[in-house]
Amino acid sequence: MKTIKLLSVALLATFALTPLSAQKSKRKDVPKPPGYYVIKTDVPVRPKGQKDVLALRHKPMKVVRVGFIGLGMRGPGAVERFTHLDGVEIKALCDLHPERVEKAQKLLTKAGLPAAASYSGSEDAWKQLCDRDDIDLVYIATNWQHHAEMMIYAMNKGKHVACEVPAVMTLKEAWDVVNTAERTQLHCMMLENCVYDFFELTTLNMAQQGLFGEVLSSKGAYIHNLEPFWKYYEGNWRLKANEEYRGDIYATHGLGPACWVLNIHRGDRMQFLTAMDVPATSLPRFMKKEMGIQNPKVANGEMTQTLIKTFKGKTIYLEHNVTSYRPYDRLYQVIGTDGFANKYPNEGYCLRPTEQAKESVPNHEDLKGHDFVSEETKQALMKKYQHPIQREIAEKAKKVGGHGGMDFIMDYRLIYCLQNGLPLDMDVYDLAEWSAIGELTRLSLENNSAPVAFPDFTRGAWDRLKGLQLHMLPASSATK
Amino acid sequence: MKTIKLLSVALLATFALTPLSAQKSKRKDVPKPPGYYVIKTDVPVRPKGQKDVLALRHKPMKVVRVGFIGLGMRGPGAVERFTHLDGVEIKALCDLHPERVEKAQKLLTKAGLPAAASYSGSEDAWKQLCDRDDIDLVYIATNWQHHAEMMIYAMNKGKHVACEVPAVMTLKEAWDVVNTAERTQLHCMMLENCVYDFFELTTLNMAQQGLFGEVLSSKGAYIHNLEPFWKYYEGNWRLKANEEYRGDIYATHGLGPACWVLNIHRGDRMQFLTAMDVPATSLPRFMKKEMGIQNPKVANGEMTQTLIKTFKGKTIYLEHNVTSYRPYDRLYQVIGTDGFANKYPNEGYCLRPTEQAKESVPNHEDLKGHDFVSEETKQALMKKYQHPIQREIAEKAKKVGGHGGMDFIMDYRLIYCLQNGLPLDMDVYDLAEWSAIGELTRLSLENNSAPVAFPDFTRGAWDRLKGLQLHMLPASSATK
Repeated sequence: MKTIKLLSVALLATFALTPLSAQKSKRKDVPKPPGYYVIKTDVPVRPKGQKDVLALRHKPMKVVRVGFIGLGMRGPGAVERFTHLDGVEIKALCDLHPERVEKAQKLLTKAGLPAAASYSGSEDAWKQLCDRDDIDLVYIATNWQHHAEMMIYAMNKGKHVACEVPAVMTLKEAWDVVNTAERTQLHCMMLENCVYDFFELTTLNMAQQGLFGEVLSSKGAYIHNLEPFWKYYEGNWRLKANEEYRGDIYATHGLGPACWVLNIHRGDRMQFLTAMDVPATSLPRFMKKEMGIQNPKVANGEMTQTLIKTFKGKTIYLEHNVTSYRPYDRLYQVIGTDGFANKYPNEGYCLRPTEQAKESVPNHEDLKGHDFVSEETKQALMKKYQHPIQREIAEKAKKVGGHGGMDFIMDYRLIYCLQNGLPLDMDVYDLAEWSAIGELTRLSLENNSAPVAFPDFTRGAWDRLKGLQLHMLPASSATK
Repeated sequence: MKTIKLLSVALLATFALTPLSAQKSKRKDVPKPPGYYVIKTDVPVRPKGQKDVLALRHKPMKVVRVGFIGLGMRGPGAVERFTHLDGVEIKALCDLHPERVEKAQKLLTKAGLPAAASYSGSEDAWKQLCDRDDIDLVYIATNWQHHAEMMIYAMNKGKHVACEVPAVMTLKEAWDVVNTAERTQLHCMMLENCVYDFFELTTLNMAQQGLFGEVLSSKGAYIHNLEPFWKYYEGNWRLKANEEYRGDIYATHGLGPACWVLNIHRGDRMQFLTAMDVPATSLPRFMKKEMGIQNPKVANGEMTQTLIKTFKGKTIYLEHNVTSYRPYDRLYQVIGTDGFANKYPNEGYCLRPTEQAKESVPNHEDLKGHDFVSEETKQALMKKYQHPIQREIAEKAKKVGGHGGMDFIMDYRLIYCLQNGLPLDMDVYDLAEWSAIGELTRLSLENNSAPVAFPDFTRGAWDRLKGLQLHMLPASSATK
């Protein structure tokens, strides 16, 4: 972090003395933003011969062999969900604590599955899991601070990786993970579940079918008072992350659905951001009063608010607040020329009475006036625009549970795509983009909310893919 | 505008070559923001001997004699409301069009009031109204483009002024109006009605009584699709404003309530902002398709989003969107350490179960969990924390109408404070601050969302008043 700080100060000085006209963009067709300069971070040159992993495909595999690292908060639920997936073998379970591994083994037994190999008892036991030659996918659900190291190690051992959110804590980690994924040409996916929630998938489907006209802006947030939960994180690792890091360090649940609907690095890209925060207030008070911490120092703001500009002129608004007293809210909102979707506190749509909209609702009189459509109209819309993915596994997901289904859909899609040799729904560039918000916002916050450029993690390929695609095989050719 | 542009470029160059340590703040106790510099605009030196008008009081007046300029969109409704106010004489009515004056005269007749003097038929007729020696207050409801000139002229003729929103279009107008108000020591108030809406006043009362703990952030917006309305503005003056001005030119309805709850220039002040916009999309399409305008050029963004930082570290988020297809939304939200208020799309509160909160609700079991309180609890809260102003005139306001009462409360309070020699609820600094957003956001937008400093319109007195106060006399000593 000091390096980035020095680097940005050096860049600042350099830019301050460089006439704006001399700051040419390398790509001729990317217009140089006029006026005020933007803080830039280092974009490492891609090693010669290394290719990007956009729309990466691997050979189909009938069975995906999985190893789980981390059985604390999210891990056990993932193991349990995997016991419901066909064509999966749970080969290994790892946690620092042997008793957690034992507990997870019982989930396998309960599902009538053979025991997995156990790894525990040391800080490095997870490496042995990654060293195995009978694992295709390493599923990481440890504390954030270990994510990058584990992903890199596992990929270097030839394994695909799936990693909980946020997958990386810093820009350096982001680039190291991106480079490793590209060098090894392996799947590296962040386990962002909120993109698969029912309203989000349905709304995405509507957007992709043009129901909202041109999508111009989206919103996302992680607003969730964690006072009841801090104590459950071993050694206070989640609290420590908030003590240590300023910025929107947990943006992915809000940013994911927004990036999906805006086709980020699939035709558009995030260009720069500005951020603002309110100094920590509720959390230090809570730490003193409820946790007996005498001199609490919290770097993370009470709330962090971010505005992101895309290359095509769209915007994304993000908010992060884990400490104020207010209802849970991911702020999901889609704003288009012809329609609007909003999730919190009540799911609703508002549609311009275009031909498409009128054909999509039972009573198009309900589209007069700029109001939310009626409950009846909303149900009809959500039924008509149900995402194909949902149609396939909606019922199964609801039974298995986990956040009302989105966790299961996420795991299902990961395995489905691996089994069928398809590109995954999310790639390493989503991982890097949605996690890099942490450090990028910090840079802005430390500089009076100055604009900070978004590095292009695809290094030039952000508009090769034409729109987000969630791949599915025609029913007849799927291996499952 | 060119001057400001040149000035800011010059400032840019100056700052770029000035070591940050040399950029000292004039006030010793205002910490100099570290790091990245902020675009500053000119703060004219206050003329020697000129005083500010914070908490300005005039001699009580039994009767307030009013002249109205502008009887197009908002004017007639105001005249009608004033016929219901006691201790008011409507002395003069002015509009470019004689027939509008005639129509307004009928409102007086209908209320059994004597006819007012009529002014119309020329672009300068309004000046004659201001020249009269039997008018105390000039009430301006013309197009935005004439506001500043009329306010200044009227004050120079010794009249108090009340002016529709936004009161000024540029920083220059803002400073000219502030200087005139200070030089003449007259009341100069913007007619912001949304601060008086029932939920906003109630929530303000809750905030001021500490129910939300420390208020940390607020939101506001003007989200209102104007497609059904553009044509009603004479000569398309409102459309022209959007064609000509980039930035959040209509921030006051959203910003007003936010500034009130955050005590802006009453203990805190807006320090800087950053803004982002999406290029105009729906409006040019509408102008072509529905208004037959061949080559529409719209400077104002489809939507404009702004983040504002206050001196005390609080934030305000603003949004402006008069063109996308979505429900009306002023985004009013108050975020505190111990509670939360949200207005759109459904009014709701969420409270931490503090002693105060528990005493404020019939069933404090409803305060468990971080959820919106039940309808029953909400009603009880709103009844308990009903603002004294509302208690006094709530019923009368609802009968007279106009946006469900907030227009009437606004006019009532203006007249009440004038009659009783009290400071008005809003002063010329509110007028300047809430209107200056237009140009300040434009500066940011034209500079890659760079931070832009908020000029201190009070020129050093922003923390003299200790919190927002809506003045009322004890019932026994009021003249009405």
